[in-house]
Amino acid sequence: MGYNYKIILQYEGTRYNGWQKQGNTENTIQGRLETVLFKMTGKQIEIHGSGRTDAGVHAMGQVANFHLPEYRKPEQITAYLNQYLPEDIAVLQTEQAPERFHSRLSAVGKVYRYQIRTWQKKDVFQRRFQYGFGKPLNVDAMKKAAGFLCGTHDFKSFCGNPKMKKSTIRTIRSVHVEQAPENGTVTFTFEGNGFLQYMARIMSGTLIETGSGERLPEELPRILEAKNRQMAGFTAPPEGLCLMEVQYKRASKNWRQQSL
Amino acid sequence: MGYNYKIILQYEGTRYNGWQKQGNTENTIQGRLETVLFKMTGKQIEIHGSGRTDAGVHAMGQVANFHLPEYRKPEQITAYLNQYLPEDIAVLQTEQAPERFHSRLSAVGKVYRYQIRTWQKKDVFQRRFQYGFGKPLNVDAMKKAAGFLCGTHDFKSFCGNPKMKKSTIRTIRSVHVEQAPENGTVTFTFEGNGFLQYMARIMSGTLIETGSGERLPEELPRILEAKNRQMAGFTAPPEGLCLMEVQYKRASKNWRQQSL
Repeated sequence: MGYNYKIILQYEGTRYNGWQKQGNTENTIQGRLETVLFKMTGKQIEIHGSGRTDAGVHAMGQVANFHLPEYRKPEQITAYLNQYLPEDIAVLQTEQAPERFHSRLSAVGKVYRYQIRTWQKKDVFQRRFQYGFGKPLNVDAMKKAAGFLCGTHDFKSFCGNPKMKKSTIRTIRSVHVEQAPENGTVTFTFEGNGFLQYMARIMSGTLIETGSGERLPEELPRILEAKNRQMAGFTAPPEGLCLMEVQYKRASKNWRQQSL
Repeated sequence: MGYNYKIILQYEGTRYNGWQKQGNTENTIQGRLETVLFKMTGKQIEIHGSGRTDAGVHAMGQVANFHLPEYRKPEQITAYLNQYLPEDIAVLQTEQAPERFHSRLSAVGKVYRYQIRTWQKKDVFQRRFQYGFGKPLNVDAMKKAAGFLCGTHDFKSFCGNPKMKKSTIRTIRSVHVEQAPENGTVTFTFEGNGFLQYMARIMSGTLIETGSGERLPEELPRILEAKNRQMAGFTAPPEGLCLMEVQYKRASKNWRQQSL
């Protein structure tokens, strides 16, 4: 299997069709990375992401792993990738990982952030990283609604894939709802053991509908119980979403010893 | 002359050929604003900026003024412009100004900010707003050099236009050099009564050369005395520069009374 490497990545998703390679389209984060890995090694190297971020979604701390047939120093891999990747994708760190480490299968948690502009005037500098809702939101109502999302539930109502065959049960450990005092930006921070397709965006859309008075916080338990996508709110647009962190049981360097 | 309006503007300069309309090219901030003013009034309305920001330079507080033949409520002008301007140009405020107010001629000061990344790894999220220098800078040396720029001097060595016929004497009131403790970003803040072509960028380039050890702070007085562009440092790239504020003697509402 060669040498397994774990990388931590940042990207601005604005101009990409998301993480996952699709057919011939190379305009994905995975595609861009594999192109540079091919340039580096002369071989087709498959890179595994911790999850598929949607088109337009950003990452501050995406994690991926790949196997190289020959050993290379992690810092050389970081430097090579950063030299040839486009300016909106950056490798923060590369480290050697245990053979069994898999960025998706080994992950035990993720943190997503969703940012919303609540004032009317457009923001020229933050527009790529905020959903420009442009109206006030009731933070107390959203906090109350967010509380109902926490815990272990069947999140089928918050799953964008109607054909999902696997379990839709996930644990949301916390949802923080904050409003920046200086400009009113509302931020949701979701931490959970896993997220279904569009789940962070559907939870965000549902919270926004609660904050704007279209829904009551008390509706949330019924939405969960219904296990029906139609019951939840809209899928909030991708530009507000950012994958902040992927969590693993322990530092991957100790991981092999621990699993023996 | 009709009704004089003062507007405060923000823009991300990345995709524009600067403020000033040039021949047929519409891809300027001035051009975009005049296009929307034409749409609003059916007339060619000339808009006067406080100064010509270069291609790629940003603004948090650019000021401009224009005359309309018929009265319109300032808040209606703000709303109309924001509706039809592209997403990287925003009007923060519109107010009626005294007949004699001119955004450039009435200005008594300006504040420019220049931002520099000093760590090696590229920054995916700030890359449009920072010069990616990528190496450490000696802040103390730059502070010392900056001190020599303050005061009233002939800034011919810091003027990008070799054919400049008018006075190149300007007063720099202050230059602040700061480094953010969390990530090392270096910020220069220049406040002065006026800036020559490329002056903020040539001052930034000269400070950077001082901070990287290519020059000594003590060279600054000789550079000023030489009145020769060749003596000063390089023209730092536009993406790091942002026009923060344009200063006027007093609120324009009282301006007319004061000038009588």
